[in-house]
Amino acid sequence: MRASRPVVHPVEAPPPAAVAAAAAAVAVEAGGGGGAAAHGGENAQPRGVRMKDPPGSPGTPGGLGLRLVQAFFAAAALAVMASTDDFPSVSAFCYLVAAAILQCLWSLSLAVVDIYALLVKRSLRNPQAVCIFTIGDGITGTLTLGAACASAGITVLIGNDLNICANNHCASFETATAMAFISWFALAPSCVLNFWSMASR
Amino acid sequence: MRASRPVVHPVEAPPPAAVAAAAAAVAVEAGGGGGAAAHGGENAQPRGVRMKDPPGSPGTPGGLGLRLVQAFFAAAALAVMASTDDFPSVSAFCYLVAAAILQCLWSLSLAVVDIYALLVKRSLRNPQAVCIFTIGDGITGTLTLGAACASAGITVLIGNDLNICANNHCASFETATAMAFISWFALAPSCVLNFWSMASR
Repeated sequence: MRASRPVVHPVEAPPPAAVAAAAAAVAVEAGGGGGAAAHGGENAQPRGVRMKDPPGSPGTPGGLGLRLVQAFFAAAALAVMASTDDFPSVSAFCYLVAAAILQCLWSLSLAVVDIYALLVKRSLRNPQAVCIFTIGDGITGTLTLGAACASAGITVLIGNDLNICANNHCASFETATAMAFISWFALAPSCVLNFWSMASR
Repeated sequence: MRASRPVVHPVEAPPPAAVAAAAAAVAVEAGGGGGAAAHGGENAQPRGVRMKDPPGSPGTPGGLGLRLVQAFFAAAALAVMASTDDFPSVSAFCYLVAAAILQCLWSLSLAVVDIYALLVKRSLRNPQAVCIFTIGDGITGTLTLGAACASAGITVLIGNDLNICANNHCASFETATAMAFISWFALAPSCVLNFWSMASR
């Protein structure tokens, strides 16, 4: 818990606009430095106004909900796939299990960070933290999508192309693939929002 | 060619900073409006300074090179996969062919737009154009990655898990999959750069 402390900071910074405006008024009354004082007031105002986190970004209830959905569906894909006894014979299904474990761990750890930020009412708009979240989301999202697509290819091959579902757990494979896709669909908004807030700061 | 005209605009806008600065100087000399004039000069300056396109973004030689690499490797994946006679029996390989066709058409059309922008020395930083490029890159990139992963899953199943390469064109399938992955790797920077420039404007 102590490790996440440096990445959080208060949402509401004490607005220095009032102080700067008072200084500007004094300077204007003194005369001569009117242009410079107006310049200073212009620069000080955006520092006091802080944009609210968009829903779904880290440290908001929406972001926490997205993380929990990702972790739940990744865990479901893992459980359904691991419940079949013949998944280790296909590399793509082993890869799906590995990707689901990684996705579940990543989403759960970020959910813990979100819960902490919500409990202490702090924002997670630290540039380094957002950069780490974006890169992690990009990597886990690519791996999860790849695993889901590989499993879908094998499942369609078994079920539609070869018609050997009688000897295989087609229903379990399809369910696990669908869960992995849903987990990826829940991850995509987090990744896009994080990247957006990293690029637009 | 005429359809792409509205999305381009000149790189070098005539800088209005000089005019604004002259007006500000006149106002300061007249006295009384010093603060307002400095304010006007402050606002006018960023409009004259235009950020240079980062290498790899649309309308630059790097962007054109990325598009040509994407189109070349997508066409290579398509050609290698279509050269095998049994690819229609596997759904994932048909999907790879379809995704490679889409990727090739998309990259070639954007390469044409890039060539046009380079020939007439214009920038493609129009917000609507960048938005369309980003969404198109995202969709084609997801489809290409999905197709490549599905083909890779099938190829690994045939070659490593079942060891039936003797009856199949394993080398062709592996080559086509690798080409699709390379095409996706060339697409990713375009997509990230477009999204970055869309978010940071």
